[in-house]
Amino acid sequence: MALTEDPRPLIHFTPQNGWMNDPNGPWFDEKEQLWHLYFQYTPNDTTGSSDLHWGHATSTDLSTWVDHGVAIAPEEKGQGIFSGSVVVDHNNTSGFFDDDIDPRQRVVALYTLNSKDAQTQEVAYSIDGGYSFTKYEANPVLDVNSKQFRDPKVFWHEPSNHWVMVLAKSQEYKIQIFGSTDLKNWVLHSNFSAGLYGFQYECPGLFELPIEGEDKKKWVMLLAINPGMPLGGSANQYFIGDFDGYRFIPDDSQTRIHDHGKDFYAFQSFSDAPLEDGVLGVAWASNWQYAKHVPTKEWRGSTGIVRNHTLARMPANPESDLLTLVQKPVIGSSVKAERLVEEKNLTLSSSDPISAKANKTGVFDIELTFTVSAEKKVSKVINISILSNSHNGTKEEITLGYDANVEAFYVDRGIDNKFNKNPFFTDKISAFVEPLKTDKDSNKTFNLRAIVDKNLLEVFLNDGSSTITNTFFMSEGSLPESVVLSASTDDTYVVDFAVDELSLRH
Amino acid sequence: MALTEDPRPLIHFTPQNGWMNDPNGPWFDEKEQLWHLYFQYTPNDTTGSSDLHWGHATSTDLSTWVDHGVAIAPEEKGQGIFSGSVVVDHNNTSGFFDDDIDPRQRVVALYTLNSKDAQTQEVAYSIDGGYSFTKYEANPVLDVNSKQFRDPKVFWHEPSNHWVMVLAKSQEYKIQIFGSTDLKNWVLHSNFSAGLYGFQYECPGLFELPIEGEDKKKWVMLLAINPGMPLGGSANQYFIGDFDGYRFIPDDSQTRIHDHGKDFYAFQSFSDAPLEDGVLGVAWASNWQYAKHVPTKEWRGSTGIVRNHTLARMPANPESDLLTLVQKPVIGSSVKAERLVEEKNLTLSSSDPISAKANKTGVFDIELTFTVSAEKKVSKVINISILSNSHNGTKEEITLGYDANVEAFYVDRGIDNKFNKNPFFTDKISAFVEPLKTDKDSNKTFNLRAIVDKNLLEVFLNDGSSTITNTFFMSEGSLPESVVLSASTDDTYVVDFAVDELSLRH
Repeated sequence: MALTEDPRPLIHFTPQNGWMNDPNGPWFDEKEQLWHLYFQYTPNDTTGSSDLHWGHATSTDLSTWVDHGVAIAPEEKGQGIFSGSVVVDHNNTSGFFDDDIDPRQRVVALYTLNSKDAQTQEVAYSIDGGYSFTKYEANPVLDVNSKQFRDPKVFWHEPSNHWVMVLAKSQEYKIQIFGSTDLKNWVLHSNFSAGLYGFQYECPGLFELPIEGEDKKKWVMLLAINPGMPLGGSANQYFIGDFDGYRFIPDDSQTRIHDHGKDFYAFQSFSDAPLEDGVLGVAWASNWQYAKHVPTKEWRGSTGIVRNHTLARMPANPESDLLTLVQKPVIGSSVKAERLVEEKNLTLSSSDPISAKANKTGVFDIELTFTVSAEKKVSKVINISILSNSHNGTKEEITLGYDANVEAFYVDRGIDNKFNKNPFFTDKISAFVEPLKTDKDSNKTFNLRAIVDKNLLEVFLNDGSSTITNTFFMSEGSLPESVVLSASTDDTYVVDFAVDELSLRH
Repeated sequence: MALTEDPRPLIHFTPQNGWMNDPNGPWFDEKEQLWHLYFQYTPNDTTGSSDLHWGHATSTDLSTWVDHGVAIAPEEKGQGIFSGSVVVDHNNTSGFFDDDIDPRQRVVALYTLNSKDAQTQEVAYSIDGGYSFTKYEANPVLDVNSKQFRDPKVFWHEPSNHWVMVLAKSQEYKIQIFGSTDLKNWVLHSNFSAGLYGFQYECPGLFELPIEGEDKKKWVMLLAINPGMPLGGSANQYFIGDFDGYRFIPDDSQTRIHDHGKDFYAFQSFSDAPLEDGVLGVAWASNWQYAKHVPTKEWRGSTGIVRNHTLARMPANPESDLLTLVQKPVIGSSVKAERLVEEKNLTLSSSDPISAKANKTGVFDIELTFTVSAEKKVSKVINISILSNSHNGTKEEITLGYDANVEAFYVDRGIDNKFNKNPFFTDKISAFVEPLKTDKDSNKTFNLRAIVDKNLLEVFLNDGSSTITNTFFMSEGSLPESVVLSASTDDTYVVDFAVDELSLRH
């Protein structure tokens, strides 16, 4: 069986060799109908210790990627091409392009040049559809004499007719908002500070999202901090409000967490994506607390799954609805789903777990809807176990589930092996969500979707209104092989349950 | 050896029998020079499932407590005396007292009466120095027709010459600020919302603190949320700003975490404490995710150690200082400290750990100052292990330490026993702090103090500018017995290290 052969995630991007961290400048080439992703990359080591490059990958469907290696390299030793974004300069506002270049491929990258004494913003452009870049001769385009000034995210703001750049004055805890008409000359318009500060701000984002069920849109300001999250290390937070092209005004002082797992950082939205109802984006699926130590071999680091984002007003408790990000995973057409298990309207009994066993890849897409009986029980736990192929006779297991007594979902990625002893590789992670629906008898309905891809678990709770992204590392040779749904008590849950095994068409 | 005989914390309050959660109404009786603590209490069960009372305890030194049992009980089944505060009404603004009652003992309790259909604020007074209470005949004093309206914290605000009450409109995510001149009639002045919202707000607090090294004070607004913390379940957050008696205006939009551990909730400051330079307060040392399941027997729940709070401007990174709470544990005169180990200016080697073994109680007060060599090393970990007396031949261990590669402190309370399998009892908890001092060669100095009391570990990092409070549960019969300091590499740390064993003078 193929399970043990390739420990590399199947439907997530990983570099062929070397190290990756933040996704950079993802965009959609409308001419070629091709998705581009860049990323923080060191080709020759797996610890990210040497000078960072932009790596490059492309995809026709956001699920499988072709790795093109280095797209932008630093000029000198000790310098790094740090995070940034790509825009499509349709109208050639920058003057980098002539009429030979299709407006849909007028690609400009804006990134931070990290050197010993400064972080400055630079521009490079591509006339071959994003594969190779020419650095602007008058770089840097933005230099404020700071060592902690980085990660420009740029987009065209139609109402104010100019380019907007958000970037982090990292250690002053400011997201700065600049404007430009040519991508070269930038004017500071405002600063934004909020939320958990940690050590520093990184990788800001700003985009407009529709509110589901309402004929209204709101702006979302994202920012990443590392270290300093309550769960440990790095994570993303966001704020909801209005943006007029110059200033972001949050609706409230609420600090919202983008993903409740430990492996979701440096989120980037896609430029020029042909979207009707949301914004596509992608995060790095790791945490700086242990990213350099995870037990993969030729490569280290991967993206999370590409997600579409909207906003929705969800029940936060019986008295309040709150606007929240809703995230849905994108599974592209290169992925084949083979149904292993399908149950409808089943009452789960403690003695009768439901199992799904992989045939090929051990990559799973799990969907579960369940209704918790309001009737009092001593213990009401529903549990999905992801079991490895037998490794030295012992199956390794990670679990997720819902505890109706505690009223929370949990993920436990604690496996008794060497890597898991890392004191920062937090085992037990939980998230609280209100029921999607509570009926007149107080029975509560929830749903979840979980994507399991070799060493990555992404859980989408209640239609994606809360998510938990965690890597996990079974011992060498062990990979997910089966999925088992079980309950601690009889007659407590009515469930719809389906497990697909995912593989690639090729 | 006595270690195994009593699993009850020695220098923290636990009820003799039954369940406790939030501390309530702590105050200082200046006449008797006696500290009073009330608390959410059910005498007859250890799960907090029945109707909550106020329990009562007193202490002469804040370290050892006499349990007086129930102070305020509900009148009817299904009702509960929920959290609140006690004030000393020196000037008899309430009219509850006559001249027979010493002004220093004019004790008024304000608490939430929880009933099936409403949460209302009630008043009770004591004419015997806080031991028994008479409920005001015209209760409730505040009823806004809400089921989620609770936890009044009251104090006298001298500049505006009135009583101030902060309380939580819990599921609307509002801290409401009321004013009164007689403790009976209350007027709403303002609302405050900020930070992580979770499911609901609880247990607000508001007090003024001096800023260390500056001739200035600031107000601190505290609030607790449960569930919904990124670390899982319940925790306290705070905001720093100004207060004029009517409205709290935060200095910034920063969300600050009161304690980075998993067992610090529902903090209450002491009323009428004779303070020169700070505010004393106490939290509940548990988390609603597992509080009802912890493996103690006659009782469940304890307080954290009483802490003095100030504010200080601490380095948050090389470019910013941030105002932060500084917390110092109070060890009272009833506690005897016997030094087990003392090392000064020692270079720690990987082959030569330093051990301290308990003689009596296994209750430790550990102090460590260390300087991390800037010289690059493959691995730079410093580790304090707390080892149990041998249990079935296997010593159980919890660890805390500093990883210089990750630049963070960690606590790992994962012990392979039955209770620790609880998926919400998060094993691995970490906190980042900047060095207290960085010398010209980039060597970094940190300090920590750790109090270990049977099943409670409280870590105070960098003079208490960050804290981590965690319960831990070794298997039955196992208790902390020795403390071992070790390093992963030679010549990396220069340390001062002292371990005291704490016992009671009696």
